[in-house]
Amino acid sequence: MKYPTGIKQHTKKTIHYGNRGMSLEEDINITNVYYREEDIAVIYKKPTPITITKVDFPNRKEAVIKEAYFKTPSTTDYNGIYRGKYIDFEAKETKQERFPLNNIHNHQIVHMKQIIHHGGIGFFIIRFTQKQETFLLKGETLFTFIEQETRKSIPYDYIKENGYLITEKINPRIDYLSWVDTIYFEGGKS
Amino acid sequence: MKYPTGIKQHTKKTIHYGNRGMSLEEDINITNVYYREEDIAVIYKKPTPITITKVDFPNRKEAVIKEAYFKTPSTTDYNGIYRGKYIDFEAKETKQERFPLNNIHNHQIVHMKQIIHHGGIGFFIIRFTQKQETFLLKGETLFTFIEQETRKSIPYDYIKENGYLITEKINPRIDYLSWVDTIYFEGGKS
Repeated sequence: MKYPTGIKQHTKKTIHYGNRGMSLEEDINITNVYYREEDIAVIYKKPTPITITKVDFPNRKEAVIKEAYFKTPSTTDYNGIYRGKYIDFEAKETKQERFPLNNIHNHQIVHMKQIIHHGGIGFFIIRFTQKQETFLLKGETLFTFIEQETRKSIPYDYIKENGYLITEKINPRIDYLSWVDTIYFEGGKS
Repeated sequence: MKYPTGIKQHTKKTIHYGNRGMSLEEDINITNVYYREEDIAVIYKKPTPITITKVDFPNRKEAVIKEAYFKTPSTTDYNGIYRGKYIDFEAKETKQERFPLNNIHNHQIVHMKQIIHHGGIGFFIIRFTQKQETFLLKGETLFTFIEQETRKSIPYDYIKENGYLITEKINPRIDYLSWVDTIYFEGGKS
């Protein structure tokens, strides 16, 4: 079996049984490396958007950023291509029993609505760290919740019922694309 | 006619007749704003990838990056969705009479090959600043050149012959998607 070098190096450094201690972002990143190395999909996390205000050039070849600020992202964090389709998602984890909606910026909601409107696939990956459960929630499902409810957070039970539990494995760590197959290519919850 | 606010503000600040003085990146950014505001496509430039090595927290709400370095990008700069298809491109300008291939990192070539392999649309936007001419060059065309030639730059004439000249307009500034229509949706050079 082909074993992607990127993942090997990563798991060597950070063996955590039952996945405790690894962030959702790290899990998704090594999953995306797996997808790329196995030629399944090309999906990346976008770099963190910053505003650079001061750069030093200690020598001709090197530039050092000396002052910069984090910007509010105008899009979601992850995008790419899978089975010819444009994929777009945001990933968030919470320690609470509910998912607080202020975790997601309004820009990101608007962005994902545009993506879906143009024929792309848009969803959220939400992890409840206490329960160690990670769900895929369709963009459309989250929009419906926001339109119908005034609550500022989504209850765990709502996500459990309307989302898709991603079983964690060794490799790929969190195989969210197998749910994408079921939901978007086979047309429903199995 | 609907006039997107983002563009209005931008053109107000930077009126340059014949487009001199505006970088290709600025032209593409305002073009992408136009595409989004007119609901034509959702395409963004990715943030510049950096490695953050030092962050200060002067107060609880604000973080200031005090040391960071530019990273070599592993993907192309622009991606998004248009007519349901995944779009991916890199934009470069040169003052020379030829396009130097060291402007494009090997990572970016590998990335674009993967994108095309997975059913996406991948191309380069190349501007010759002396001539004030901007071309769309298909990813496949650039790959063919690299495979067949040992030269370290692509001659202007080659790009003129095998690429697509983008006529600059007021709005959208450089309407590269009209060539995408012709090449990828209607199947050829008109």
